[in-house]
Amino acid sequence: MSFPFEVNATDGAARSGVLKTTRGEIRTPAFMPVGTAATVKGMLPEQVKDLGADIILGNTYHLMLRPGAERIARLGGLHEFMRWDGPILTDSGGFQVMSLAGLRKMSEEGVSFQSHIDGSKHMLTPERSMEIQAALGSDIVMAFDECTPFPATEEEARKSMELSMRWARRSKVAFDEKDGASNLFGIVQGGVYPKLRKQSAEELTTIGFDGYAIGGLAVGEGQDLMFQVLEDTIPHLPGARPRYLMGVGKPDDLVGAVSRGVDMFDCVLPTRSGRNGQAFTWRGPINLKNARHTDDPRHIDASSSCPATRDYSRAYLHHLVKSNEILASILLTWNNLAFYQELMRAMREAIEAGAFHEFVRKFNDLYSQGDIARIS
Amino acid sequence: MSFPFEVNATDGAARSGVLKTTRGEIRTPAFMPVGTAATVKGMLPEQVKDLGADIILGNTYHLMLRPGAERIARLGGLHEFMRWDGPILTDSGGFQVMSLAGLRKMSEEGVSFQSHIDGSKHMLTPERSMEIQAALGSDIVMAFDECTPFPATEEEARKSMELSMRWARRSKVAFDEKDGASNLFGIVQGGVYPKLRKQSAEELTTIGFDGYAIGGLAVGEGQDLMFQVLEDTIPHLPGARPRYLMGVGKPDDLVGAVSRGVDMFDCVLPTRSGRNGQAFTWRGPINLKNARHTDDPRHIDASSSCPATRDYSRAYLHHLVKSNEILASILLTWNNLAFYQELMRAMREAIEAGAFHEFVRKFNDLYSQGDIARIS
Repeated sequence: MSFPFEVNATDGAARSGVLKTTRGEIRTPAFMPVGTAATVKGMLPEQVKDLGADIILGNTYHLMLRPGAERIARLGGLHEFMRWDGPILTDSGGFQVMSLAGLRKMSEEGVSFQSHIDGSKHMLTPERSMEIQAALGSDIVMAFDECTPFPATEEEARKSMELSMRWARRSKVAFDEKDGASNLFGIVQGGVYPKLRKQSAEELTTIGFDGYAIGGLAVGEGQDLMFQVLEDTIPHLPGARPRYLMGVGKPDDLVGAVSRGVDMFDCVLPTRSGRNGQAFTWRGPINLKNARHTDDPRHIDASSSCPATRDYSRAYLHHLVKSNEILASILLTWNNLAFYQELMRAMREAIEAGAFHEFVRKFNDLYSQGDIARIS
Repeated sequence: MSFPFEVNATDGAARSGVLKTTRGEIRTPAFMPVGTAATVKGMLPEQVKDLGADIILGNTYHLMLRPGAERIARLGGLHEFMRWDGPILTDSGGFQVMSLAGLRKMSEEGVSFQSHIDGSKHMLTPERSMEIQAALGSDIVMAFDECTPFPATEEEARKSMELSMRWARRSKVAFDEKDGASNLFGIVQGGVYPKLRKQSAEELTTIGFDGYAIGGLAVGEGQDLMFQVLEDTIPHLPGARPRYLMGVGKPDDLVGAVSRGVDMFDCVLPTRSGRNGQAFTWRGPINLKNARHTDDPRHIDASSSCPATRDYSRAYLHHLVKSNEILASILLTWNNLAFYQELMRAMREAIEAGAFHEFVRKFNDLYSQGDIARIS
């Protein structure tokens, strides 16, 4: 297999390791900042790198529509286009296309849909998704799947999962026809049904992928059910391959998922929340829009190594948020991505020290305490 | 005088020098990036500093309304609030307040107006403007004046100018009552009428200021008339004091004004244009929205030392602008402020080398050539 993954330490089900790609190593557990339209919103690529992110995510759906996958290929690929020389994982486009509701039509072949930008007509199939991800120059390619909605009956979830498994096979065939240095991940579906998750995991393992994603979660089922599905799924995945929980999540989601054996995550939460005035901290999320910060000269967290977290007063951040200043988005996105990377680093170190259980206890204690007391 | 200004070199009417404040030296001719609401939009303060900006501008009107001047004072002043430790020039609030049209009422005492944010009622007078600028901790305080509209009859311009001169005296009295390390600039008005400009310059010189601004320009009169007013005004200002042309301008405005003896400038153009997809270059402004850049792998200017100008392709910048990405605003603002600072540096060096005339000729040649040819 072209894609070495070394597990360096385990602590319970949690594990820390390193995933080696031709564009660099990814320390796991890893959080991948989302760069939807070839930019991690509000950040320079070197800022993202400096935070300790080893890999970012790009979105097939957005990029195929604008500026176009073949255009990016002509311009030297996504890495050169957006000036990110580390690994990039691309999603398959399936998730976004499914969420187009009235604008798309599903078939065995794939999904036909209209662009949300200009109404133009497109078709995504496993083969086209592989082609697009290759054109982008992706380091980790995702199989084309259907993200089963929640709630779904067992019968609905079964049919959807079986379609995803057929698409996974087609993805693998199409991927293997290209002679690249990239890697292909399969995606486990099956809703909240243990039997279906097991069946999906086993089918994917039979096909054989470089890594295994767990899809169809964080779609409204709640944290307890999400953790349950992880516990029902992960034992059926090969231990020697990385496990990627797609679209997750809040900091406490990450901690709970790592403790259940997940290695990789992506989520728009730190970037999107940052643009909405929310800052993640070790004491939980805080909303800088809140009037309690108006006269507060204290920083978000003076002990952080991130300048956005350590150097700017809450009063200033509050002012920027209220004034809709671009700098509010920049600083809070920076804070949030820094916190997420710091959280991953702390988890890796705790696992390596055999102290993950203690880390989780302390994390939950502090995280549930809430923000420092307001100034009098 | 607490405010040493040294002219190091002259070339024709152009001059290069250094203005010394307690917070650092300002190399002149200087361009001051505008930090309206306590932020140079889209930029981190250290980025602005790294571009070579010695001083930035803050807006009294915006800051008095949000977050409030006294609040900023309690939080340690504007420098600490926005994390800019170099000099800050604050305007008097007059210009913005005048532009509120239906929402303000003028009297001899000052201007009463309603906030554009929440409709709350406020009054700006010369005394209140001095108080606010002191609360902000301004290094260069501007006298409170009326910006005479264009067009104005000679009689209208005279009355407006005479009011500004009475307000200038009141500003000086109020300013002198504070025992600070800051400096006060008077503002010449008088519309496009040489006699009035001369009278205004002489009256201000009699009152005595640390520097002299030329106001009421770049309000629709056009470049030729603006240059004419500079020629009618500057000879009547004391040569030993800095001259500041307010709210100007385009790169060719700056070159023409420096050649007529102006030392300082401020303008929202580089920041605002950057947010609108426009990039300033040595070959004139270019619009990254334009379809000609869609597939262009070339940079804005590969010879620049600014990463935004040198490292990102036009195709990528075009994509970011079309996608309304924050990074478009960041990179184009960065390019524009870098270009403006580079232009000022080039002018200072040309003046010091006694080669300013040649510089102007070459600048105009290149600037009027327009952008590099489109790719075939």
